[in-house]
Amino acid sequence: MREDIKSRIRNGHPWIYENEIDKVEGDFQDGDIVDVFSHSRDFVGRGYINSKSKIRVRLLTRRNEKIDREFFLRRIREIVEWKSRLVKDTQAFRVVFSESDGLPGLVVDKYADYLVIQIGALGMERLKPLVLDALVEIFDPKGIFEKSDYPAREREGLEKVREWIYGKGPELIPFEMNGFKFFADTLGQKTGFFLDQRENAKLLKDVADGRTVLDVFSYTGTFSVHSLAYGAKRTVLVDYSERALEVAKLTLDENGFSGRYELVSENAFDFLISLYRSGQRDFDMIILDPPAFAKSFEDRRSAYRGYKEINLRSMKLLPDGGILVTSSCTRVVSEQDFMVVLYDAASDSRTRLQLVKKGGQPSDHAPTLNIFETFYLKFMVFRVNKMR
Amino acid sequence: MREDIKSRIRNGHPWIYENEIDKVEGDFQDGDIVDVFSHSRDFVGRGYINSKSKIRVRLLTRRNEKIDREFFLRRIREIVEWKSRLVKDTQAFRVVFSESDGLPGLVVDKYADYLVIQIGALGMERLKPLVLDALVEIFDPKGIFEKSDYPAREREGLEKVREWIYGKGPELIPFEMNGFKFFADTLGQKTGFFLDQRENAKLLKDVADGRTVLDVFSYTGTFSVHSLAYGAKRTVLVDYSERALEVAKLTLDENGFSGRYELVSENAFDFLISLYRSGQRDFDMIILDPPAFAKSFEDRRSAYRGYKEINLRSMKLLPDGGILVTSSCTRVVSEQDFMVVLYDAASDSRTRLQLVKKGGQPSDHAPTLNIFETFYLKFMVFRVNKMR
Repeated sequence: MREDIKSRIRNGHPWIYENEIDKVEGDFQDGDIVDVFSHSRDFVGRGYINSKSKIRVRLLTRRNEKIDREFFLRRIREIVEWKSRLVKDTQAFRVVFSESDGLPGLVVDKYADYLVIQIGALGMERLKPLVLDALVEIFDPKGIFEKSDYPAREREGLEKVREWIYGKGPELIPFEMNGFKFFADTLGQKTGFFLDQRENAKLLKDVADGRTVLDVFSYTGTFSVHSLAYGAKRTVLVDYSERALEVAKLTLDENGFSGRYELVSENAFDFLISLYRSGQRDFDMIILDPPAFAKSFEDRRSAYRGYKEINLRSMKLLPDGGILVTSSCTRVVSEQDFMVVLYDAASDSRTRLQLVKKGGQPSDHAPTLNIFETFYLKFMVFRVNKMR
Repeated sequence: MREDIKSRIRNGHPWIYENEIDKVEGDFQDGDIVDVFSHSRDFVGRGYINSKSKIRVRLLTRRNEKIDREFFLRRIREIVEWKSRLVKDTQAFRVVFSESDGLPGLVVDKYADYLVIQIGALGMERLKPLVLDALVEIFDPKGIFEKSDYPAREREGLEKVREWIYGKGPELIPFEMNGFKFFADTLGQKTGFFLDQRENAKLLKDVADGRTVLDVFSYTGTFSVHSLAYGAKRTVLVDYSERALEVAKLTLDENGFSGRYELVSENAFDFLISLYRSGQRDFDMIILDPPAFAKSFEDRRSAYRGYKEINLRSMKLLPDGGILVTSSCTRVVSEQDFMVVLYDAASDSRTRLQLVKKGGQPSDHAPTLNIFETFYLKFMVFRVNKMR
């Protein structure tokens, strides 16, 4: 028997794939708002359509409501009211986490008086004026920067955008978070900063004291700042991007950590190998926060290899009693699979790993159980015990 | 080719099953300390043996060291030194988490000036005088209560014990935790209190404000105390045990919450069903902290059914925007499987679940990746969104 509608969709998932559509009635242009009905003609929801995307329709609502300025005002206000209960001690947080906050294709991050937005789908691009209007009304920001430069845009037939689209602000947007000073780099990764590690970084609090830290894939130094503030003696930041290290330097100095860090612009894999070969064993805490090694499920085996390589090297470099802080930000590797990879590396290096702290996605990046794609961030702090 | 030794054991797991032993040399009595060698006669480790248990040997060390008073002093001192870095704002914590802390068969919890210990294996029973000696030297406690009353003892051929074995103390041991007052009940569950929810209870902080809370399987009221302290209007505690509710009453009153709670001594399943049938929809936050519904992998399907039932009922009872706090403490259900059960219940109740906070095992109950049996506690806070 044919399902009346895919259970995935019925259960709250907002995507309608091309092969799940039986019939299209009426004319439409890509990016238009359309209604979706089940086979038995029940109203399912309303969203935007794009014939160039395999995800043909993304639902914005399951009610019969107009998608207008009021819709965005209402939705974003509701999200902000909720998140302001949960997000503390920071001038920066993710205001809108796309699908999981009911606004597919839209990311909005707030950095003090500025907003940075990302638009990942044609339909949301068409709605941008309404979104902007709502954001200006709610936040009255000094500026809104659009940083829609991620590859998914191409699949939607969209150009890359990287510019101030409302007001104006600095290239590096300063803000405070967890009591420290940081900068969102409008020329950097994602929206300029990895806000999703905000709560995880605090987990270093009781473990960093007295440590000599190797901060691999450091980007602009979030984990180094926290480590040093929490009592680490010294940190070495490794990142391929010289730009990221420049911002890291600025950030570390602003927080009063001059002279307690070293910057190394190098490929992290090469760095770990040469460090191992050198015989140097200076570090008793290693932090690994690599980029997503894979974007699609087809590539996940290469991601496993990447994770295993860097974690294995780190386990070999650490002394008995050392700390391994390890993260994975790709949704194609589940937490369980990530743990299997770590166990594999632990076996190869004769290491026992005690999971001292486990982080994940903070409340402003809260994933939705009904949309498994919204789960992506894993974060673990292990105490390393070497077996003889 | 025959493995020289099971990779599980080689990789840090301390259990040697009966069918993994090729040959026994020399005489032994059950409970004796023995050495374990690989097929190629490499020393693997030293532990205690019990011919009555399928887990024939549990390793205490992989070094050639004597298992004496000094061994326990050294090991426990090292654990305490490490945990005192991590465990804050509490007079109570798990000093020794058996296998994961390298001391199979031994649990030691500290409640202010008292210790409660659990011994789960014959070998550790024989070593008890050394353990006691070490604990007295390290903590100088007013009393040590032995609460070795769990069923696993029978498989080891051990009697149940429930008595002060050093000094003396009250039936209800008072202590402070997270800024509140609690009691460990020497006649209650486990070591008298569920210390493993200590950090998880703090996660209610930003979500409980203004809520009317249903605290199901409340035991002695840990979550109700936290909820009320964090701004909940009212809580209703449901537990089958009248004894648990008496201690809950004492605890809630001690913390100044008289008049803000109600106690219901009833089977939780029955209570949820009759509440649903009554049409009453008073609660906008439901907490589920059930006992382990299954102890063995063979029984895990019945655990799935139990978890689905109570979570489904709760989702149906909650309004749009409500909070579901849900936990599972059995190691036979993985976090991933638990999430599948929750998704299943969400589908049946047309509910979208946003994972606002995720807890787990605190640092003093840190699981070890190489010993998968040490992972057991799941804890999640969801925001409930009803689909129309």
